[in-house]
Amino acid sequence: MKRTRIIDAPKFVGKQVKIAGWVNIRRDHGKLIFIDLRDATGIIQTVILPNHDEAYEAAKGLRSEYIIEMEGIVKKRPGESKNEKMSTGDVEIEADVIKVISKPEVESPVDISEENLNIHLSTLLDYRSLTLRNEKIKAIFRVYGDVLKSFGDIMRDSGFQEIKTPKIVNAATEGGANFFKIKYFDRDAYLAQSPQFYKQAGVGIFERVFEIGSVFRAEPHYTTRHVNEYIGMDAEMGFIDNFSDVMDALESVIWHMMKSVENNCKQDLLRYGAEVPKKKAIPRIKLSEALEILKKEYGKEVENEDIDPESERLICQWAKEKHGSDFVFLTHYPGHSRPFYTMPSADGKYTETFDLIFRGIEIATGGQRIHNYEQLVASMKKFGLKPETFKDYLDIFRWGMPPHGGWGLGSERIVQQLLGLKSIKEAVLFPRDVKRLNP
Amino acid sequence: MKRTRIIDAPKFVGKQVKIAGWVNIRRDHGKLIFIDLRDATGIIQTVILPNHDEAYEAAKGLRSEYIIEMEGIVKKRPGESKNEKMSTGDVEIEADVIKVISKPEVESPVDISEENLNIHLSTLLDYRSLTLRNEKIKAIFRVYGDVLKSFGDIMRDSGFQEIKTPKIVNAATEGGANFFKIKYFDRDAYLAQSPQFYKQAGVGIFERVFEIGSVFRAEPHYTTRHVNEYIGMDAEMGFIDNFSDVMDALESVIWHMMKSVENNCKQDLLRYGAEVPKKKAIPRIKLSEALEILKKEYGKEVENEDIDPESERLICQWAKEKHGSDFVFLTHYPGHSRPFYTMPSADGKYTETFDLIFRGIEIATGGQRIHNYEQLVASMKKFGLKPETFKDYLDIFRWGMPPHGGWGLGSERIVQQLLGLKSIKEAVLFPRDVKRLNP
Repeated sequence: MKRTRIIDAPKFVGKQVKIAGWVNIRRDHGKLIFIDLRDATGIIQTVILPNHDEAYEAAKGLRSEYIIEMEGIVKKRPGESKNEKMSTGDVEIEADVIKVISKPEVESPVDISEENLNIHLSTLLDYRSLTLRNEKIKAIFRVYGDVLKSFGDIMRDSGFQEIKTPKIVNAATEGGANFFKIKYFDRDAYLAQSPQFYKQAGVGIFERVFEIGSVFRAEPHYTTRHVNEYIGMDAEMGFIDNFSDVMDALESVIWHMMKSVENNCKQDLLRYGAEVPKKKAIPRIKLSEALEILKKEYGKEVENEDIDPESERLICQWAKEKHGSDFVFLTHYPGHSRPFYTMPSADGKYTETFDLIFRGIEIATGGQRIHNYEQLVASMKKFGLKPETFKDYLDIFRWGMPPHGGWGLGSERIVQQLLGLKSIKEAVLFPRDVKRLNP
Repeated sequence: MKRTRIIDAPKFVGKQVKIAGWVNIRRDHGKLIFIDLRDATGIIQTVILPNHDEAYEAAKGLRSEYIIEMEGIVKKRPGESKNEKMSTGDVEIEADVIKVISKPEVESPVDISEENLNIHLSTLLDYRSLTLRNEKIKAIFRVYGDVLKSFGDIMRDSGFQEIKTPKIVNAATEGGANFFKIKYFDRDAYLAQSPQFYKQAGVGIFERVFEIGSVFRAEPHYTTRHVNEYIGMDAEMGFIDNFSDVMDALESVIWHMMKSVENNCKQDLLRYGAEVPKKKAIPRIKLSEALEILKKEYGKEVENEDIDPESERLICQWAKEKHGSDFVFLTHYPGHSRPFYTMPSADGKYTETFDLIFRGIEIATGGQRIHNYEQLVASMKKFGLKPETFKDYLDIFRWGMPPHGGWGLGSERIVQQLLGLKSIKEAVLFPRDVKRLNP
């Protein structure tokens, strides 16, 4: 007999089906034994009556996380016993055959059958391979999967070529700190902290490129919005007129992703009471203007034009109240806060750059880059960098590059903000932070 | 005026268009100047007549890799001057406006306008950001992009959940050598040489998972089929009856990808004279049988059942002659050549494993894994490993796991074999080998 996926079981009322999965929970009600069985597609209630001797004996021995096969008849549940919260809530299976496929060795240290686990983040992560089996937590990664897929789809549809660039690099590029050092055979190397140089090379080849890939940041941060390894959704595009073109492109990508998640993850969103932002023009505010708003509206002063997390939250609050927008672009960051390859604005003080803030957290950063070789060399020198250590990168510009720009978008932060998760670590299957390298 | 993509220009015969891109080559024919202009979508011939004074003067100064904007009228080319090899070969643009957007600093060290570059691999890679601009080389990465996309599509359609797993791990898992060591804040860590443990955890969560991600191998190989960093296309599936289920799944994935590339990359395949294998059942041969065939048909003896690259080539040759197949599954590798988590066959000597060979090179390896905790611990001990160092991994099985198996598939090797590239490095944008960490 062929296995039926639990999500499909309600289609077979009155029929015998075989299902398989994990015992989510067993409940004994007098003579009746109820087993909630879980597979990849959902959970279904099954009931075992004492007259099915063998199945009944087997059911008595079952515990949470036992993996079993079951056969039985799909039955409509009477009105009052329907469970509206389960997608299979209007049926149950009266099981007459139970076969144990695999037994856990130990009892679960966490009862994952609860809708909300209510455990400390460190416990959630310590028992990660178990806690991820919880239905509500699985929902996070279905949303995450849709974010990855919809990003790839819209990029390809917009004429961007997918690329994969090396994560092992020979120099701490971008001139920054925060690189992990590797032993690479008989020499030192580093883990890429962004695909920046390679995607710029990509513009010289394909004009428009995107990458979904690992990003490594050796930042000793202990916050709810940082992990040391994440998946970046990067893009870079050539022949732009100015950096508004880049914001325009990112904006349509964002709306495509939002629509996709809204259409494909209804039940998952419902579990988190999450609302997907409705499409509307995203306000674009100069950082200097934002700082004035902060001062005027919230009495908050920011030093050295270095906007802090609280200010990002407040400016989003303002954007929501004033423009009804969950997103806001902050633009024209000062030169000292951006890397050497950043295109300066005409005034020389600010830059053709932006951050995209979503419900109080920066999810993307981008802008126009310098495409002229001489200008790039001059900028390196101004930043105290030695052009001769950037030969391969400078070659891209020696051989001719069009005006271009792009962005880096954090995949996990989108999910964090969409679902309202307290920590970004909840949006990573197996997160890495300063202290955590396992599981 | 809006920019027209070069591939679309033939639709505008008799109309004025603006195009932009790189000067692929300039040719002076008496009074006429011809510019082949290249953008992301293709190359088109343009002609500049002396009566357009300004454009003509500008055209005289153009060199290869200059980035320009051009305006002009699209004209049908007379029959005898059509170029069948170009997709835009039946038109040319008579340009009357030329604007230089960006000039290269130096002349290209390699003439990339040639169809075949005919340069040594090391030159090809040293000037990678330039040589990748060659049309025939770009074709490789259009095929590669289609391989990535079609793999993701078929996996999702087959009910596999996309996952992203950490590449920084706290122990040299799988008990093997060949790990790159990282300095991770105040301790040591390693780069993941496969997502094996994490995707098995994924089966406990989603039953079926796949990942497209970076794989790092510190193998000191100098061959045409190894790089030290590549993109793995991994999958793992639960509730299998045996490892044939895994081969069945991989086989449909392969055919889906082949069909996709054939449909979407016609021109790219043509450039390489590449033929996509026609769908037919892939032969499944036990390794022991394969060794007998090698001995009988080719007089080749293999020691210790360790099949070598030449034998893989020969067995593919045999599969092509005997079964008309470009692919062959070799199955039942001996236990000593597979990792500790491999499911042994009933006889205890062989394993429930396979390699998939494509035109002489292994592109995938997979099989069934041990899902029982006690059996796994016993296997670790047999391999001389300490179960206490695998606590997080063993937890997955302590909490209950169904029978499962999966594969690792090398994305670049598929492209290498499809297009008949001499080295896998040609199928990687910026390859990493023992000696090469740049560009």
